[in-house]
Amino acid sequence: MDPDLEAVRLITSSSGFFSPAEVDMACELVSERLQRGLDSGYLFLFAETGGRTVGFSCFGPIACTESSFDLYWIAVLDEFRGLGLGRELLRGTESRIWLAGGRRVYVDTASKPQYRPTRDFYERNGYRAEARLCDFYLKGDDKIIYSKELDPARIDISPEPSDAA
Amino acid sequence: MDPDLEAVRLITSSSGFFSPAEVDMACELVSERLQRGLDSGYLFLFAETGGRTVGFSCFGPIACTESSFDLYWIAVLDEFRGLGLGRELLRGTESRIWLAGGRRVYVDTASKPQYRPTRDFYERNGYRAEARLCDFYLKGDDKIIYSKELDPARIDISPEPSDAA
Repeated sequence: MDPDLEAVRLITSSSGFFSPAEVDMACELVSERLQRGLDSGYLFLFAETGGRTVGFSCFGPIACTESSFDLYWIAVLDEFRGLGLGRELLRGTESRIWLAGGRRVYVDTASKPQYRPTRDFYERNGYRAEARLCDFYLKGDDKIIYSKELDPARIDISPEPSDAA
Repeated sequence: MDPDLEAVRLITSSSGFFSPAEVDMACELVSERLQRGLDSGYLFLFAETGGRTVGFSCFGPIACTESSFDLYWIAVLDEFRGLGLGRELLRGTESRIWLAGGRRVYVDTASKPQYRPTRDFYERNGYRAEARLCDFYLKGDDKIIYSKELDPARIDISPEPSDAA
Protein backbone atom coordinates (compact mmCIF):
# COMPACT_ATOMS: atom_id res chain seq x y z
CA MET A 1 0.00 0.00 0.00
CA ASP A 2 1.21 3.50 -0.74
CA PRO A 3 2.68 5.08 2.44
CA ASP A 4 0.52 8.23 2.19
CA LEU A 5 -2.58 6.12 1.77
CA GLU A 6 -1.57 4.00 4.74
CA ALA A 7 -0.94 7.12 6.85
CA VAL A 8 -4.30 8.64 5.98
CA ARG A 9 -6.10 5.39 6.81
CA LEU A 10 -4.25 5.11 10.12
CA ILE A 11 -4.84 8.74 11.12
CA THR A 12 -8.53 8.88 10.20
CA SER A 13 -9.30 5.57 11.90
CA SER A 14 -7.12 6.18 15.00
CA SER A 15 -9.67 8.17 16.97
CA GLY A 16 -12.78 6.12 16.26
CA PHE A 17 -14.27 9.49 15.39
CA PHE A 18 -14.89 8.83 11.72
CA SER A 19 -17.17 6.10 10.39
CA PRO A 20 -15.68 3.37 8.16
CA ALA A 21 -17.43 5.05 5.19
CA GLU A 22 -15.73 8.34 6.04
CA VAL A 23 -12.33 6.65 6.39
CA ASP A 24 -12.82 5.03 2.96
CA MET A 25 -13.75 8.40 1.55
CA ALA A 26 -10.55 10.02 2.84
CA CYS A 27 -8.53 7.15 1.33
CA GLU A 28 -10.33 7.58 -1.97
CA LEU A 29 -9.15 11.19 -2.15
CA VAL A 30 -5.54 9.99 -1.72
CA SER A 31 -6.03 7.38 -4.46
CA GLU A 32 -7.50 9.97 -6.81
CA ARG A 33 -4.56 12.24 -6.09
CA LEU A 34 -2.05 9.44 -6.73
CA GLN A 35 -3.77 8.42 -9.96
CA ARG A 36 -4.60 11.79 -11.46
CA GLY A 37 -2.01 14.07 -9.92
CA LEU A 38 -2.89 17.74 -9.61
CA ASP A 39 -5.78 17.21 -12.08
CA SER A 40 -7.57 15.48 -9.21
CA GLY A 41 -8.06 18.89 -7.62
CA TYR A 42 -6.90 17.50 -4.27
CA LEU A 43 -3.92 18.93 -2.44
CA PHE A 44 -2.47 17.36 0.68
CA LEU A 45 -0.35 18.63 3.50
CA PHE A 46 1.25 16.11 5.84
CA ALA A 47 2.56 16.75 9.35
CA GLU A 48 5.56 14.59 10.18
CA THR A 49 7.56 14.02 13.31
CA GLY A 50 10.54 11.68 13.58
CA GLY A 51 9.84 10.34 10.09
CA ARG A 52 6.30 9.46 11.07
CA THR A 53 3.19 11.01 9.49
CA VAL A 54 0.97 12.10 12.33
CA GLY A 55 -1.54 14.40 10.64
CA PHE A 56 -2.76 15.62 7.29
CA SER A 57 -5.08 18.02 5.57
CA CYS A 58 -6.73 17.68 2.17
CA PHE A 59 -7.96 20.75 0.33
CA GLY A 60 -8.49 22.08 -3.16
CA PRO A 61 -9.91 24.81 -5.36
CA ILE A 62 -13.67 24.84 -5.93
CA ALA A 63 -14.46 24.60 -9.64
CA CYS A 64 -16.14 27.60 -11.26
CA THR A 65 -15.23 29.95 -8.42
CA GLU A 66 -12.63 32.67 -8.65
CA SER A 67 -10.74 31.99 -5.43
CA SER A 68 -12.73 29.69 -3.12
CA PHE A 69 -11.20 26.54 -1.66
CA ASP A 70 -12.69 23.59 0.14
CA LEU A 71 -10.96 22.11 3.15
CA TYR A 72 -12.07 18.49 2.80
CA TRP A 73 -10.17 16.95 5.68
CA ILE A 74 -7.96 17.79 8.56
CA ALA A 75 -7.02 15.09 11.07
CA VAL A 76 -4.32 14.25 13.56
CA LEU A 77 -3.30 10.83 14.90
CA ASP A 78 -5.21 10.24 18.10
CA GLU A 79 -2.16 10.03 20.38
CA PHE A 80 -0.90 13.36 19.03
CA ARG A 81 -4.09 15.29 19.63
CA GLY A 82 -4.16 18.21 22.05
CA LEU A 83 -0.63 19.34 21.19
CA GLY A 84 -1.65 22.12 18.82
CA LEU A 85 -0.79 20.09 15.71
CA GLY A 86 -4.25 20.62 14.22
CA ARG A 87 -3.82 24.35 14.53
CA GLU A 88 -0.37 24.15 12.91
CA LEU A 89 -1.76 22.07 10.08
CA LEU A 90 -4.62 24.51 9.58
CA ARG A 91 -2.25 27.49 9.45
CA GLY A 92 0.00 25.68 7.01
CA THR A 93 -3.00 24.74 4.89
CA GLU A 94 -4.27 28.30 4.81
CA SER A 95 -0.87 29.61 3.76
CA ARG A 96 -0.74 27.10 0.89
CA ILE A 97 -4.26 28.02 -0.15
CA TRP A 98 -3.28 31.68 -0.17
CA LEU A 99 -0.19 30.98 -2.26
CA ALA A 100 -2.35 28.99 -4.70
CA GLY A 101 -4.60 32.04 -5.16
CA GLY A 102 -7.30 31.06 -2.68
CA ARG A 103 -8.99 33.81 -0.69
CA ARG A 104 -11.93 32.05 0.97
CA VAL A 105 -11.95 28.66 2.69
CA TYR A 106 -15.04 26.52 3.23
CA VAL A 107 -15.39 23.55 5.50
CA ASP A 108 -18.43 21.39 6.19
CA THR A 109 -19.22 19.98 9.59
CA ALA A 110 -22.16 18.22 11.18
CA SER A 111 -24.34 19.66 13.91
CA LYS A 112 -24.38 16.53 16.05
CA PRO A 113 -22.80 16.80 19.52
CA GLN A 114 -19.86 14.57 18.53
CA TYR A 115 -18.65 17.42 16.33
CA ARG A 116 -18.74 20.08 19.04
CA PRO A 117 -14.91 20.00 19.48
CA THR A 118 -14.50 20.24 15.69
CA ARG A 119 -16.74 23.29 15.51
CA ASP A 120 -14.94 24.86 18.48
CA PHE A 121 -11.65 24.25 16.69
CA TYR A 122 -12.78 26.11 13.59
CA GLU A 123 -14.30 28.94 15.59
CA ARG A 124 -11.08 29.40 17.59
CA ASN A 125 -9.27 29.66 14.29
CA GLY A 126 -11.35 32.40 12.75
CA TYR A 127 -14.01 30.41 10.94
CA ARG A 128 -17.67 31.32 11.25
CA ALA A 129 -20.77 29.24 10.69
CA GLU A 130 -22.12 30.88 7.56
CA ALA A 131 -24.90 28.49 6.56
CA ARG A 132 -26.87 25.54 7.88
CA LEU A 133 -28.74 22.87 5.93
CA CYS A 134 -31.32 21.20 8.16
CA ASP A 135 -31.46 17.39 8.30
CA PHE A 136 -28.77 17.21 5.63
CA TYR A 137 -26.93 14.14 6.91
CA LEU A 138 -29.85 12.56 8.72
CA LYS A 139 -33.06 13.71 10.40
CA GLY A 140 -31.80 15.98 13.21
CA ASP A 141 -28.24 16.13 11.91
CA ASP A 142 -27.63 19.34 9.99
CA LYS A 143 -24.73 20.37 7.84
CA ILE A 144 -23.01 23.54 9.00
CA ILE A 145 -20.83 25.32 6.50
CA TYR A 146 -17.98 27.29 8.04
CA SER A 147 -16.08 29.87 6.06
CA LYS A 148 -13.11 32.12 6.50
CA GLU A 149 -11.88 34.97 4.38
CA LEU A 150 -8.11 34.72 4.44
CA ASP A 151 -6.36 37.78 5.75
CA PRO A 152 -2.95 38.41 4.17
CA ALA A 153 -1.83 40.08 7.39
CA ARG A 154 -2.37 36.80 9.22
CA ILE A 155 -1.11 34.31 6.69
CA ASP A 156 2.08 32.52 7.59
CA ILE A 157 3.93 32.33 4.29
CA SER A 158 7.32 31.49 5.76
CA PRO A 159 7.36 27.68 5.34
CA GLU A 160 8.45 26.27 2.01
CA PRO A 161 5.31 26.03 -0.12
CA SER A 162 6.83 23.34 -2.31
CA ASP A 163 5.85 20.58 0.11
CA ALA A 164 2.16 21.09 -0.66
CA ALA A 165 1.82 18.36 -3.25
CA MET B 1 -17.72 11.08 -29.55
CA ASP B 2 -20.23 9.26 -27.39
CA PRO B 3 -23.78 10.39 -28.34
CA ASP B 4 -24.72 11.24 -24.73
CA LEU B 5 -21.58 13.29 -24.35
CA GLU B 6 -22.32 15.05 -27.61
CA ALA B 7 -25.91 15.75 -26.54
CA VAL B 8 -24.81 17.20 -23.19
CA ARG B 9 -22.24 19.43 -24.88
CA LEU B 10 -24.80 20.63 -27.40
CA ILE B 11 -27.52 21.28 -24.83
CA THR B 12 -25.32 23.07 -22.30
CA SER B 13 -23.69 25.26 -24.93
CA SER B 14 -26.90 25.97 -26.91
CA SER B 15 -28.12 28.86 -24.80
CA GLY B 16 -24.84 30.69 -24.27
CA PHE B 17 -25.90 30.66 -20.62
CA PHE B 18 -23.09 28.47 -19.33
CA SER B 19 -19.41 29.39 -19.53
CA PRO B 20 -17.04 27.11 -21.48
CA ALA B 21 -15.67 25.90 -18.12
CA GLU B 22 -19.16 24.95 -17.01
CA VAL B 23 -19.85 23.14 -20.30
CA ASP B 24 -16.61 21.18 -19.86
CA MET B 25 -17.64 20.35 -16.32
CA ALA B 26 -20.99 18.91 -17.46
CA CYS B 27 -19.18 16.82 -20.07
CA GLU B 28 -16.75 15.58 -17.47
CA LEU B 29 -19.64 14.18 -15.43
CA VAL B 30 -20.81 12.22 -18.50
CA SER B 31 -17.27 10.89 -19.05
CA GLU B 32 -17.00 9.84 -15.41
CA ARG B 33 -20.34 8.09 -15.70
CA LEU B 34 -19.31 6.29 -18.90
CA GLN B 35 -15.98 5.23 -17.43
CA ARG B 36 -17.00 4.26 -13.92
CA GLY B 37 -20.66 3.34 -14.30
CA LEU B 38 -22.86 3.70 -11.24
CA ASP B 39 -19.72 3.91 -9.05
CA SER B 40 -19.31 7.42 -10.43
CA GLY B 41 -22.26 8.48 -8.29
CA TYR B 42 -23.77 10.32 -11.27
CA LEU B 43 -27.20 9.46 -12.62
CA PHE B 44 -28.59 10.96 -15.80
CA LEU B 45 -32.06 11.44 -17.16
CA PHE B 46 -32.44 12.38 -20.81
CA ALA B 47 -35.49 13.97 -22.45
CA GLU B 48 -35.94 12.85 -26.04
CA THR B 49 -38.28 13.84 -28.80
CA GLY B 50 -38.30 12.34 -32.29
CA GLY B 51 -35.11 10.45 -31.51
CA ARG B 52 -33.34 13.66 -30.54
CA THR B 53 -32.00 14.39 -27.06
CA VAL B 54 -33.28 17.83 -26.10
CA GLY B 55 -32.68 17.98 -22.36
CA PHE B 56 -31.01 16.20 -19.48
CA SER B 57 -30.54 16.19 -15.76
CA CYS B 58 -27.61 14.87 -13.74
CA PHE B 59 -28.04 13.97 -10.10
CA GLY B 60 -26.71 11.61 -7.46
CA PRO B 61 -26.63 10.60 -3.81
CA ILE B 62 -24.52 12.72 -1.46
CA ALA B 63 -21.88 10.57 0.26
CA CYS B 64 -22.19 10.13 4.03
CA THR B 65 -25.81 11.28 4.11
CA GLU B 66 -28.76 9.00 4.71
CA SER B 67 -31.01 10.18 1.90
CA SER B 68 -29.82 13.49 0.45
CA PHE B 69 -29.26 13.94 -3.27
CA ASP B 70 -27.57 16.64 -5.31
CA LEU B 71 -29.10 17.87 -8.53
CA TYR B 72 -25.94 18.82 -10.40
CA TRP B 73 -27.43 19.83 -13.72
CA ILE B 74 -30.69 20.34 -15.49
CA ALA B 75 -30.73 21.89 -18.95
CA VAL B 76 -32.87 22.00 -22.06
CA LEU B 77 -31.80 22.72 -25.64
CA ASP B 78 -32.28 26.44 -26.25
CA GLU B 79 -34.90 26.06 -29.02
CA PHE B 80 -36.97 23.79 -26.76
CA ARG B 81 -37.07 26.15 -23.78
CA GLY B 82 -40.37 27.57 -22.58
CA LEU B 83 -42.35 24.42 -23.39
CA GLY B 84 -42.40 23.00 -19.88
CA LEU B 85 -39.70 20.44 -20.61
CA GLY B 86 -37.56 21.59 -17.70
CA ARG B 87 -40.46 21.05 -15.35
CA GLU B 88 -41.06 17.58 -16.81
CA LEU B 89 -37.40 16.72 -16.42
CA LEU B 90 -37.39 17.97 -12.85
CA ARG B 91 -40.46 15.89 -11.95
CA GLY B 92 -38.94 12.82 -13.59
CA THR B 93 -35.68 13.43 -11.76
CA GLU B 94 -37.42 13.76 -8.41
CA SER B 95 -39.34 10.52 -8.96
CA ARG B 96 -36.10 8.69 -9.74
CA ILE B 97 -34.43 10.18 -6.69
CA TRP B 98 -37.36 9.04 -4.57
CA LEU B 99 -37.19 5.52 -6.01
CA ALA B 100 -33.44 5.44 -5.29
CA GLY B 101 -34.15 6.23 -1.63
CA GLY B 102 -33.61 9.97 -1.79
CA ARG B 103 -35.73 12.21 0.39
CA ARG B 104 -34.09 15.63 0.10
CA VAL B 105 -32.77 17.34 -3.01
CA TYR B 106 -30.17 20.10 -3.04
CA VAL B 107 -29.27 22.37 -5.89
CA ASP B 108 -26.76 25.20 -6.02
CA THR B 109 -27.33 28.39 -7.93
CA ALA B 110 -25.63 31.74 -8.19
CA SER B 111 -27.08 35.02 -6.97
CA LYS B 112 -26.15 37.01 -10.08
CA PRO B 113 -29.04 38.46 -12.12
CA GLN B 114 -28.40 36.03 -15.01
CA TYR B 115 -29.66 33.26 -12.73
CA ARG B 116 -32.96 34.94 -11.80
CA PRO B 117 -34.98 32.69 -14.22
CA THR B 118 -33.21 29.63 -12.79
CA ARG B 119 -34.07 30.61 -9.23
CA ASP B 120 -37.67 31.35 -10.26
CA PHE B 121 -37.85 27.91 -11.87
CA TYR B 122 -36.80 26.16 -8.66
CA GLU B 123 -39.10 28.30 -6.52
CA ARG B 124 -42.08 27.54 -8.79
CA ASN B 125 -41.27 23.86 -8.32
CA GLY B 126 -41.24 23.77 -4.54
CA TYR B 127 -37.60 24.52 -3.78
CA ARG B 128 -36.63 27.08 -1.19
CA ALA B 129 -33.43 29.04 -0.75
CA GLU B 130 -32.11 27.45 2.42
CA ALA B 131 -28.61 28.90 2.64
CA ARG B 132 -26.43 31.56 1.10
CA LEU B 133 -22.64 31.76 0.96
CA CYS B 134 -21.54 35.33 0.34
CA ASP B 135 -18.98 36.02 -2.42
CA PHE B 136 -18.64 32.29 -3.04
CA TYR B 137 -18.18 32.40 -6.82
CA LEU B 138 -16.74 35.88 -7.02
CA LYS B 139 -16.92 39.11 -5.02
CA GLY B 140 -20.62 40.02 -5.15
CA ASP B 141 -21.71 36.66 -6.57
CA ASP B 142 -23.08 34.44 -3.82
CA LYS B 143 -23.94 30.77 -3.85
CA ILE B 144 -27.56 30.07 -2.98
CA ILE B 145 -28.41 26.53 -1.94
CA TYR B 146 -31.97 25.48 -2.71
CA SER B 147 -33.51 22.41 -1.12
CA LYS B 148 -36.71 20.44 -1.32
CA GLU B 149 -38.00 17.71 0.89
CA LEU B 150 -39.69 15.25 -1.44
CA ASP B 151 -43.32 14.62 -0.69
CA PRO B 152 -44.50 11.09 -1.55
CA ALA B 153 -47.98 12.46 -2.22
CA ARG B 154 -46.54 14.59 -5.00
CA ILE B 155 -44.05 12.21 -6.54
CA ASP B 156 -44.86 10.92 -9.98
CA ILE B 157 -43.78 7.28 -9.81
CA SER B 158 -45.63 6.14 -12.90
CA PRO B 159 -42.84 6.26 -15.53
CA GLU B 160 -40.53 3.30 -15.85
CA PRO B 161 -37.67 3.94 -13.43
CA SER B 162 -35.34 1.67 -15.41
CA ASP B 163 -34.46 4.45 -17.82
CA ALA B 164 -32.59 6.36 -15.12
CA ALA B 165 -29.14 5.11 -15.92
